[in-house]
Amino acid sequence: MDQETAELLVRTGPGTAMGNLMRRYWVPVMLLSEIAEPDCAPVRVKILGERLLAFRDTQGRAGLIDEFCAHRGASLFLGRNEEGGIRCSYHGWKYDVTGQCTELPSVPNLACKMKLKAYPCIERGDILWAYMGPPEKQPAPPELEWSLLPPSHRYVSKRFQATGWLQAMEGGIDTTHASWVHRYELDHDPMHQHAKANKYIKADRNAVFDLEESPHGLTIFGRRNGEENSHYWRITQWIFPWFTLIPPFGPHALGGHMWIPIDDHNCWAWSFDYHPVRALTGEERKAMEDGKGIHVKVFPVTFRPLQNKDNNYLIDRAAQKAGHTFSGVEGIGMQDASLQESMGPIQDRTKENLVSTDNGIIMARHRLMKAAKELAAKGTLPPGRDPGHQQVRSVAVVLPQGTPFKEGAGEALKAKAGVAQTSV
Amino acid sequence: MDQETAELLVRTGPGTAMGNLMRRYWVPVMLLSEIAEPDCAPVRVKILGERLLAFRDTQGRAGLIDEFCAHRGASLFLGRNEEGGIRCSYHGWKYDVTGQCTELPSVPNLACKMKLKAYPCIERGDILWAYMGPPEKQPAPPELEWSLLPPSHRYVSKRFQATGWLQAMEGGIDTTHASWVHRYELDHDPMHQHAKANKYIKADRNAVFDLEESPHGLTIFGRRNGEENSHYWRITQWIFPWFTLIPPFGPHALGGHMWIPIDDHNCWAWSFDYHPVRALTGEERKAMEDGKGIHVKVFPVTFRPLQNKDNNYLIDRAAQKAGHTFSGVEGIGMQDASLQESMGPIQDRTKENLVSTDNGIIMARHRLMKAAKELAAKGTLPPGRDPGHQQVRSVAVVLPQGTPFKEGAGEALKAKAGVAQTSV
Amino acid sequence: MDQETAELLVRTGPGTAMGNLMRRYWVPVMLLSEIAEPDCAPVRVKILGERLLAFRDTQGRAGLIDEFCAHRGASLFLGRNEEGGIRCSYHGWKYDVTGQCTELPSVPNLACKMKLKAYPCIERGDILWAYMGPPEKQPAPPELEWSLLPPSHRYVSKRFQATGWLQAMEGGIDTTHASWVHRYELDHDPMHQHAKANKYIKADRNAVFDLEESPHGLTIFGRRNGEENSHYWRITQWIFPWFTLIPPFGPHALGGHMWIPIDDHNCWAWSFDYHPVRALTGEERKAMEDGKGIHVKVFPVTFRPLQNKDNNYLIDRAAQKAGHTFSGVEGIGMQDASLQESMGPIQDRTKENLVSTDNGIIMARHRLMKAAKELAAKGTLPPGRDPGHQQVRSVAVVLPQGTPFKEGAGEALKAKAGVAQTSV
Repeated sequence: MDQETAELLVRTGPGTAMGNLMRRYWVPVMLLSEIAEPDCAPVRVKILGERLLAFRDTQGRAGLIDEFCAHRGASLFLGRNEEGGIRCSYHGWKYDVTGQCTELPSVPNLACKMKLKAYPCIERGDILWAYMGPPEKQPAPPELEWSLLPPSHRYVSKRFQATGWLQAMEGGIDTTHASWVHRYELDHDPMHQHAKANKYIKADRNAVFDLEESPHGLTIFGRRNGEENSHYWRITQWIFPWFTLIPPFGPHALGGHMWIPIDDHNCWAWSFDYHPVRALTGEERKAMEDGKGIHVKVFPVTFRPLQNKDNNYLIDRAAQKAGHTFSGVEGIGMQDASLQESMGPIQDRTKENLVSTDNGIIMARHRLMKAAKELAAKGTLPPGRDPGHQQVRSVAVVLPQGTPFKEGAGEALKAKAGVAQTSV
Repeated sequence: MDQETAELLVRTGPGTAMGNLMRRYWVPVMLLSEIAEPDCAPVRVKILGERLLAFRDTQGRAGLIDEFCAHRGASLFLGRNEEGGIRCSYHGWKYDVTGQCTELPSVPNLACKMKLKAYPCIERGDILWAYMGPPEKQPAPPELEWSLLPPSHRYVSKRFQATGWLQAMEGGIDTTHASWVHRYELDHDPMHQHAKANKYIKADRNAVFDLEESPHGLTIFGRRNGEENSHYWRITQWIFPWFTLIPPFGPHALGGHMWIPIDDHNCWAWSFDYHPVRALTGEERKAMEDGKGIHVKVFPVTFRPLQNKDNNYLIDRAAQKAGHTFSGVEGIGMQDASLQESMGPIQDRTKENLVSTDNGIIMARHRLMKAAKELAAKGTLPPGRDPGHQQVRSVAVVLPQGTPFKEGAGEALKAKAGVAQTSV
Repeated sequence: MDQETAELLVRTGPGTAMGNLMRRYWVPVMLLSEIAEPDCAPVRVKILGERLLAFRDTQGRAGLIDEFCAHRGASLFLGRNEEGGIRCSYHGWKYDVTGQCTELPSVPNLACKMKLKAYPCIERGDILWAYMGPPEKQPAPPELEWSLLPPSHRYVSKRFQATGWLQAMEGGIDTTHASWVHRYELDHDPMHQHAKANKYIKADRNAVFDLEESPHGLTIFGRRNGEENSHYWRITQWIFPWFTLIPPFGPHALGGHMWIPIDDHNCWAWSFDYHPVRALTGEERKAMEDGKGIHVKVFPVTFRPLQNKDNNYLIDRAAQKAGHTFSGVEGIGMQDASLQESMGPIQDRTKENLVSTDNGIIMARHRLMKAAKELAAKGTLPPGRDPGHQQVRSVAVVLPQGTPFKEGAGEALKAKAGVAQTSV
């Protein structure tokens, strides 16, 4: 990959080609639980290189505005959130959720002229989303299946990752790595244990992958040997620009991730699990809270994992030798994070050697690059903004040999309200 | 404010316009208690971007010299201070308080040719001051009122602040912020409680400010409603280039600050309280040592506050909600420091929106810029170097409406030995 | 010293003149104890600015290869070392000690085309050495005396130093500093106590130094007054490009150092002690393990000293005043490290003032510069690569006045198997 294309894909600040592309979608900003109550403490958050402040006003409206006061640049994080807005502690200037200055005590008639940058917000799927692009291009709210379910049916978590967004997301698209670094979790992770699925996965490590360009992005068809006359299929989606889905293991939940740039060297790695037609059990929810499956235990406020670069991810060479973990790092999420962080904040893609199993990554990069360039050159809006396109679902299924997946289970790829997932 | 002027004001290293201006004054370097005894441990200190070493020799003379040995650049901090000078531990080269090498053991006759940079020092007001400019321009020692009093009458402290000097000093000039971020301290800080003064301050938040250019710098006249037919006046001074004074609250001490560049991203924030005609009581001194009033609890040696950026200044949202603190940060000094540090190491002054209550800041910047440019262009010495000009005093007083301040209390602005301060 | 020459000497990354010179020698990489067992945990190490991974395979062969997988750049530190090579945890690519990819699971026939950078290794003197230069220029293995002795006869340690290699090595060449910063250790360090030697060293601080250019590098002859009609000689060698030797104190061990660039701002400071004809006693070995003599107590894995810049080297001003240590820092190794680190990561050599006792440093710099330039210009191989040239030994001896050292003890400078060192 040439350096110019690599740069295009990893730079997401204001004014960059990829940053502009991302600013044509609703952006996941934070967990709603971070600004749970009216007049709660304001929260600093950096997204796409912009330092912002989120808060919930007295009426319960969420706001996402510039972190710094228009007066002399003090952080509104030190402000007071009360009586309909956030007030700077330094000289009492007050702003509402639209960024409008509503009080400027020393010169009251100037207030109307002061307005901070602010982004429209929606609340969906336990998450605060913002639209950071030009108002006239604002898309309809996202309709990802998990985000529309009752809260009881899903679990959403986030963690800080010290890499740019792209190499994080590429880990989400690349399903072959599961057979390696996550291989031992099939036996002992509570969300991955399933005799039948694991039998197939372990028996046939040379899965065959087919790719399909779809309106939402990509559909990746992975085929392994099943029983004597059947194939075991695992189907995964990448949805523009930063969503990836994970097929279920037997009766376990559907899963997925979102990979959102904090800045060019750091990202938010979001993880979710959900059942389309039932609530998570207490046991399932407890396991997710405990950092099982794709979730991770994190420090409060910063969402930095307890296992991190500074403690070598608590690598345990004895557990590695004993075959409890493949890399010595405990947990699926931290196995991915540790490998991706080990590549450096921005992987040098001019030195990589991609092979056929990396076709998903190659195609996703290609589509992102193409879409970013067409937006820049012609203003063409990028794919996947139509909520209908987002209504897809990952699948794990056994089909007779010779049956093309689409014929045997194509309908299972559609997210349908009230219909359970298809899973071996 | 344009970027060019902003740069001129915040760059203070050797050879800069503002750095040259500052090098025409006596510079507060450290507390005398840091080099209390003859032959004490040497102390590293960075001032105006220069790395220096302070020590007190066997005779008791204070020295401020280049931190590094002339031989091969080892730090003299690791040296031995004994028998009339500091000896480098590496090869035994020895220097006196003038920076002169007095012993060069391996080649004795070379000693006379080696001389380190050294600055003349004076000791006054519990502080070591140095003159870092051209010898022929050295002014008379400072005669700030508090610095000439018996030690019993004053308390001086310093803290490290992670911002450039200018935004720190601007906080000292700007008195309107006291009505906001410090407002709750009027009720419970031992150095600010005073029924009458606080009644006026709370009742009239829209103080009217007048400015006067003075030989020392600026005098800022703040007027609030007093009783039915009177005004409550609080008068503050900015003295070239980095002193600010604070009017008393009732019978409490006069106060003030000095804002001294460490380098362009950090400064020493000095605080002092004093009574012109009496000693501080044990209770007053104890409160100051405990970080009350404008003082702050700091770590030893580094003088970094216990509340700092790394611990979010121990922000307490419950205390903020309860109206014990306005910003959630405890203590007047740390309220200022947290807000100023939140602006970043160097505030971006091209983005600010100053209003009429910022006139003091605007005027001080203007005078500094003008003086720096005239020094650079014509060698004109900057204002306030005459010790007589420094003998001013802040005032808090109630006068009948219609009485111009100068007529009613103008004399109170002069520091006069043996005369108590004027304060409601 | 001009800036251009200073730059030439301190830059050692790939492609630099000095880096190329160093890449014509065997480079000490790590302690063998760091990769003690077959299939042990791999170890990351940075040498000459290159990030590398060391491991020992199932057969016991040591490998030193690029730290990062050829596929997508994940660190092989997170890999599995088993069954004849190190396997990347991400997708299972496997490499042997030559860097050859031996398994590429998803596309097996591509494995033969993937090869990581790898350097040939030898094991000698408790140390893993690598040759990082062009294969056709590879010299014979080093034959430094201590490295060929039975392990029982020597003790080798290393510590991390936060400076470039040159100012570290210059401390090793410069023997005059011992009379200053290490002076009090002569009385109480177990490896330096010796009544006779110390009497001479203390009585005559103005040693006279003579230099001789030798095939190995430099021989430095230091002469002090001995008894009435004799001289006390201490002879030290600098061996191209980074070895320095230390003469014994009475019956104590011979000593020395190696100064190896990690990158341009950090180096490995290696220390060794040895007896040519006998094993170290348990007491001697225990003292070295305890950080006595030239050795230092370090943290595991990082080899960073327990005394370091962040804790001011645990400087003890009372011990300094009491004459237990000269600089307040405890231990010979940390006295050197603290002074050298105090000069900054790369000492500014344009500001130094060298004197006659620095002639060893001046000459070593000159020879290094000359050799680096001749290698660059003409491909001339640098000196000291011939193992025979490395077989030298430091000496401490008393000779009658008037007897030239070479005549009286010249043979003692040769390392001879089975022959004890010459020492007062």
